[in-house]
Amino acid sequence: MAPEVISQKPSTPRVAIAIAPRELELFFQGPTGGPKRLRDLLLGARIFDPSSPRTDWNEWLRSEPPEILVTAWSTPLIPVDLPGLRYVCHVCGSVRRTVPRALIEHGVLVSNWGDNASEGLAEAALLLALSALRRSHYFANLMHRLRKWTSIPVGTKTLYRRSVGIHGFGRAARKLVKLLAPFHVRISAYSERVPSQFFLDAGVEQCASLDELFSRSEVLFEMEALTPATELVVTERLLRLLPPDAAFVNVARGALVDEIAATRLAAEGKIRLALDVYAKEPLSEDSPLRDLPEVTLFPHIGSPTDDRLYQCGDFALANLGRYLRREPLMAVVSLDVYDRST
Amino acid sequence: MAPEVISQKPSTPRVAIAIAPRELELFFQGPTGGPKRLRDLLLGARIFDPSSPRTDWNEWLRSEPPEILVTAWSTPLIPVDLPGLRYVCHVCGSVRRTVPRALIEHGVLVSNWGDNASEGLAEAALLLALSALRRSHYFANLMHRLRKWTSIPVGTKTLYRRSVGIHGFGRAARKLVKLLAPFHVRISAYSERVPSQFFLDAGVEQCASLDELFSRSEVLFEMEALTPATELVVTERLLRLLPPDAAFVNVARGALVDEIAATRLAAEGKIRLALDVYAKEPLSEDSPLRDLPEVTLFPHIGSPTDDRLYQCGDFALANLGRYLRREPLMAVVSLDVYDRST
Repeated sequence: MAPEVISQKPSTPRVAIAIAPRELELFFQGPTGGPKRLRDLLLGARIFDPSSPRTDWNEWLRSEPPEILVTAWSTPLIPVDLPGLRYVCHVCGSVRRTVPRALIEHGVLVSNWGDNASEGLAEAALLLALSALRRSHYFANLMHRLRKWTSIPVGTKTLYRRSVGIHGFGRAARKLVKLLAPFHVRISAYSERVPSQFFLDAGVEQCASLDELFSRSEVLFEMEALTPATELVVTERLLRLLPPDAAFVNVARGALVDEIAATRLAAEGKIRLALDVYAKEPLSEDSPLRDLPEVTLFPHIGSPTDDRLYQCGDFALANLGRYLRREPLMAVVSLDVYDRST
Repeated sequence: MAPEVISQKPSTPRVAIAIAPRELELFFQGPTGGPKRLRDLLLGARIFDPSSPRTDWNEWLRSEPPEILVTAWSTPLIPVDLPGLRYVCHVCGSVRRTVPRALIEHGVLVSNWGDNASEGLAEAALLLALSALRRSHYFANLMHRLRKWTSIPVGTKTLYRRSVGIHGFGRAARKLVKLLAPFHVRISAYSERVPSQFFLDAGVEQCASLDELFSRSEVLFEMEALTPATELVVTERLLRLLPPDAAFVNVARGALVDEIAATRLAAEGKIRLALDVYAKEPLSEDSPLRDLPEVTLFPHIGSPTDDRLYQCGDFALANLGRYLRREPLMAVVSLDVYDRST
């Protein structure tokens, strides 16, 4: 990809960046010249720091309404009635907390990091599954906090040759299938929204129902998109269909799952739980999950690892260049994508 | 593999089993009919329980010296001068703590679990590497003990497209190469004892020296056999050749590595450490490693997972059958293997 030079000549549109300095650094301080390209972009751009409470967001936006708005995790919700806004370039994945659906309905273009998160998410899913099977966080507690050792049996299980299920079959799930291949697992999957051809192409068996998927999966990866139709779709009844001592890994969204039921099953020793996401985030200090040393808990770090965030920054810069050159954008968040997104 | 029926007719040799009940259960209670086959074997066999202090090991052995001795982790050292001993069927891997070298020199046959550990070890190595890169045990501490959350940057790195090194190139290392393939890593390896053809066959670049291997590896897997030549071969100088923030994973033997230096480098934030093995095991209660929440620590659980130990039991039973039928044994521990083993 050739570096984009984006200068704020009088004829070019007004750009506003509403990203905290910490995020700007993470996304644009990469090895591919991000800082210089960002400076070029910033030349005429106004910057809003969402991490500083000094400025009022709505006032700042309306004082000089931008045509292009660059956003990230920290950006507050954009008002629906902002005049002149044409393009929201979201450097991250989920746009729901930043972009109201009405903006897209009104024709504002929105793009996000597209496929840049899927490898990191697939990798996190594999790590969580192996951790649950090998009792990684139990042993962390044993070795670090209790300062002890263990003796046989150690309660460990292998991923090799297991029967694996994936709920949801987006880009990250398809990357995960590739990571699982050398373990000689049998993979089934289920997602209402995904055409059968996707499962066929990936060499994965498509289940007829969630019941079938959960019943046969010794390791179940929760990777479905959160929509009104999938909210709390993973009920206690479904979790109890899992084979005894199955591993349940959630890297998608906490609201897909009855978290209280999952916690209860883990406490009963029925399932091995490994979670990156929670019903409410940050996870509350007194969540009973924190009291279960067997449960592997990550603080929602399943997205791209820090060392790859600059790729998302590069991707956003490339999209901004495309917009200015009136070329088609990549990773456009259409109404359809918006409704299926997490 | 057809089930072996081993009965203790008067003409068959004396069998003694010196394995704790806990281990007998783990190795012989599998889904493949182990218990029945074990009962057949046990029909005339004497059993010594190393976990019970009531009987004296040497006295018990000499009172009715066996021709065949079945051993496992808990079995004490066999005396060198036991008359009539012809075959030690070791259900586990490492024989050094059970079988004195002199026994093999004197012509006693020894077998172990052969290739049955390599998948579990490769899997543990991958898990430890991903854990170090994703800060798994740091987050275990954060989520469980400190009851906190995190904010960006989260300090995570991906394994995708990294430059990976493997020190040692036995069976487990070759399995690991297969698990690493979908991460599109560049793999180099070094082992003095391994013919170049092995590296070529695995599609791995052979380094000319340990210095070269460590200098280029962002993730270094320690998988070398412990011998007098490799003891403490991983010095502080070598560890400091690793690129900044490299991950160093040891699933081989603690005595290969200057543990104090490795601990110091981890404390300095120079390397990400993930260990399954230690200079002294069990790891002492006051080891400074236990005070470093960033370090991933497992209590030597890298061998076959519990759910696969029955395969080692089956393998031992098959070998016992072969011995009784005067067929060649599998996984014989020759003097050469003994000297290279951990």
